[in-house]
Amino acid sequence: MTEINSKNNSKIKDLIKLRDDSKFRNDKSLFYVEGERIISDSPKELIDSIYIQKSKLENFKRIINRYNDSQIFLIDDDIFNKIKDTINSQGIIAVVKYNCIKNLSNNYLENIQNCLLLDNVNDPGNLGTIIRLAEATNISLIILCNSCCNLYNPKVIRSCMSSLFRVNIYISDDISNDIKFFKNNNFKIYATVLDNESKHFNSIYYNSKSVFIFGNEANGISKSLIDTSDEKIFIPMCGRIQSLNVAIAATAICYELMRQNNYYET
Amino acid sequence: MTEINSKNNSKIKDLIKLRDDSKFRNDKSLFYVEGERIISDSPKELIDSIYIQKSKLENFKRIINRYNDSQIFLIDDDIFNKIKDTINSQGIIAVVKYNCIKNLSNNYLENIQNCLLLDNVNDPGNLGTIIRLAEATNISLIILCNSCCNLYNPKVIRSCMSSLFRVNIYISDDISNDIKFFKNNNFKIYATVLDNESKHFNSIYYNSKSVFIFGNEANGISKSLIDTSDEKIFIPMCGRIQSLNVAIAATAICYELMRQNNYYET
Repeated sequence: MTEINSKNNSKIKDLIKLRDDSKFRNDKSLFYVEGERIISDSPKELIDSIYIQKSKLENFKRIINRYNDSQIFLIDDDIFNKIKDTINSQGIIAVVKYNCIKNLSNNYLENIQNCLLLDNVNDPGNLGTIIRLAEATNISLIILCNSCCNLYNPKVIRSCMSSLFRVNIYISDDISNDIKFFKNNNFKIYATVLDNESKHFNSIYYNSKSVFIFGNEANGISKSLIDTSDEKIFIPMCGRIQSLNVAIAATAICYELMRQNNYYET
Repeated sequence: MTEINSKNNSKIKDLIKLRDDSKFRNDKSLFYVEGERIISDSPKELIDSIYIQKSKLENFKRIINRYNDSQIFLIDDDIFNKIKDTINSQGIIAVVKYNCIKNLSNNYLENIQNCLLLDNVNDPGNLGTIIRLAEATNISLIILCNSCCNLYNPKVIRSCMSSLFRVNIYISDDISNDIKFFKNNNFKIYATVLDNESKHFNSIYYNSKSVFIFGNEANGISKSLIDTSDEKIFIPMCGRIQSLNVAIAATAICYELMRQNNYYET
């Protein structure tokens, strides 16, 4: 266990950058996680290092014992207050390795059934909620494309909690190419969009492997992605509502898939 | 149109209290709304007064024309910066009269079909999202009880936008009595809770007038309300998810109601 008593320590500077700077996260393939519960739920092999507020060390004896002494850093209280991300911090932060999927192979897609493709979803709360929903409804894969908010933003993690470690997530650099790859592997591509050609989402039987595309909070799905889809589907809205929150739209679809797949005993 | 150039003006002090203090809102039965779109969507008769940032007056000529000159106040830019609630304010704030339902009568309940009862739902984002969902899925009434977050909290309004003016909302002071009243009017009460007696939410045909109870983010539905329900229903969750976000749970139920009621053309 190493003590850190200077705010100029390079570990402290890196922690702040991992918390605040998505580019730095991507460069290092590391992210910042705060709180006992989610750190306990993190797979041990993903943990890079753990930072504990000196005056609260007693609370974390059990967690610390799982790791090598060289992974644990004890932080002076004043310095910890600069690196924490929540007001009522429990006094524990971890640096965790990126766990998203690097490559899609034919083999990999063989075991995948239903996927959610998020096109430029910007709000970290929405992204976190959708990751949690994906675990709850047995979605095999989430695909992020076209500048979605950073997956490892602390706000995403606060909202999806340890589902982050149990849902498969792939960040696409070339979505048009990836869509072709999904189609070649017998996936059907559904764009959730309301136009004249769209079918009611309850009127379709989703019996093939599927990718469901959801769009940006303000602008919906990009035209190129709509054009690439096999089918357009809409979720009905009463009143004067013109668009649904993206997490609400994803919920309607995912629980319809659950219903059709009979994930329940009657 | 009256100009206000002092931050000690009582209108300015009241505006800040309406923005920040839920008790003051309740005492006055008035609330604070910011932004052109939602103010334009407010029913004219609910608007008490409108406050415009002096340097942006030109942008709001069209809105102003709808109201009496005595309702419009022009605010010095420095003072407006103290009363605004968003970083990139458009420069317009309104004080609006409470519009929630005061009393439930037999007559009133005759025209009501499906209701959502929120028991101590604390997060303003969740409450706002559920109000928007209620409009989208044709829910007749939302009932708030047991210290839900204040309906007129600015964060609720940012998240439900003008659905606030189109969804019927009732704040119950005595929910056990109100539940009796609903039952006497032939409503069936469903508690969304996972226990041995709960039925899968997709396995029920909701053919009577219904009240669906959703609980607090951390603690679920209070025991007294569970005991008063006619039926317990659960929403299935895969993986290691132990509870759903309340807005996600409400979405699963509301879109199942939509599906069963065939609010669509096939």
